Amino acid sequence: MTQDGRRLRGQRSRETILAQAVSLASVEGLDGLSLGRLAAEIGISKSGFFAHWRDKQELQLEAVDWAVRQWREHIVVPALRAPAGVRRLFALHEARLRFYAERVLPGGCFFLAVQAEFDDHPGAVRTRVVQALHDWEAFIRSLVEEAVALGELDRGVDPAQLAYEIEALGKAAVPHSRLLDEQLAFTHARRTVLQRLRGLCADPSLLPED
Amino acid sequence: MTQDGRRLRGQRSRETILAQAVSLASVEGLDGLSLGRLAAEIGISKSGFFAHWRDKQELQLEAVDWAVRQWREHIVVPALRAPAGVRRLFALHEARLRFYAERVLPGGCFFLAVQAEFDDHPGAVRTRVVQALHDWEAFIRSLVEEAVALGELDRGVDPAQLAYEIEALGKAAVPHSRLLDEQLAFTHARRTVLQRLRGLCADPSLLPED
Repeated sequence: MTQDGRRLRGQRSRETILAQAVSLASVEGLDGLSLGRLAAEIGISKSGFFAHWRDKQELQLEAVDWAVRQWREHIVVPALRAPAGVRRLFALHEARLRFYAERVLPGGCFFLAVQAEFDDHPGAVRTRVVQALHDWEAFIRSLVEEAVALGELDRGVDPAQLAYEIEALGKAAVPHSRLLDEQLAFTHARRTVLQRLRGLCADPSLLPED
Repeated sequence: MTQDGRRLRGQRSRETILAQAVSLASVEGLDGLSLGRLAAEIGISKSGFFAHWRDKQELQLEAVDWAVRQWREHIVVPALRAPAGVRRLFALHEARLRFYAERVLPGGCFFLAVQAEFDDHPGAVRTRVVQALHDWEAFIRSLVEEAVALGELDRGVDPAQLAYEIEALGKAAVPHSRLLDEQLAFTHARRTVLQRLRGLCADPSLLPED
């Protein structure tokens, strides 16, 4: 086997471990993540980890980055296929709800789990979690601004406030779908944003009626 | 000391422990709650617990009940002082945001912490957490229905959907105020609900302008 082959194999097992770490962390949180349990679930030795990461924090930081890439791939990229403006904004919200409804992650949402966990724990992992939330809100806001610039959304809209609103209505679908009526939670999460956007939209026919 | 005196003292230390347990759980979650650490923070012996509770689960269940009473006292009772209808509904939301902003609990919100924790863990504690969320949403819904019945809110409103909306916009203030700009998060959480209610209200002058 060539050195390139070994590097490729190493990269693959690194990706496999990170995917599994993000899945587990969506249930247990990143701090509850025991390297021993993770190793057992993946079927590698605990020392196998240290071929990839210096310590647990390094693994946690890369898990956050991996989860950001997963979110981008499942939610941001599909939304960017919709036409710019209010349709793209709503496509983003729908892609997020689909990600939750399809149970891509067993715990529902990696970010919700780690936001609750690290808000009280200063350090490098919290900084990375804050950055991810900041970037996500800034992205929603940029789509709102684009929809305003295209004349599709009312000029009186406060983009940061509408971004908070869309983010909050999507986020609450996680605990509500998991603890109360699942279908109803997703219906509410979808309709509240849809009706809000239709109410602010110069041409509501750009959006579904219901 | 009479038997009544001893009972009273026992009741008081029980309340003290529960208050401390709810505070700690708002940061660490209920499962992370170590009896040893709790005992150390309160300054009682670990065996002191077992005078009050059979096991950790019994303490967790009573902690949920205690947090429900705290929520009622800080949020529901003040709202009930406002006139029935849309003013009471908005007073409820404001009382909730005040509870968060005043940092009554060090972790922000006991319920958000335990909802994230127990959604994956079937058992008696999860059942109690689900009941608390169900009752809270039903209470918001009943205030919406009252406001509709009084002719203050549009008859076309779906009360369960508006309850989801108010709950989601309040809930997201916890992670957002703790991880991003605190003041901006509370401003957004307040204004989104205020503008939504004003938009649905027959007489917007019942509510503050901003």
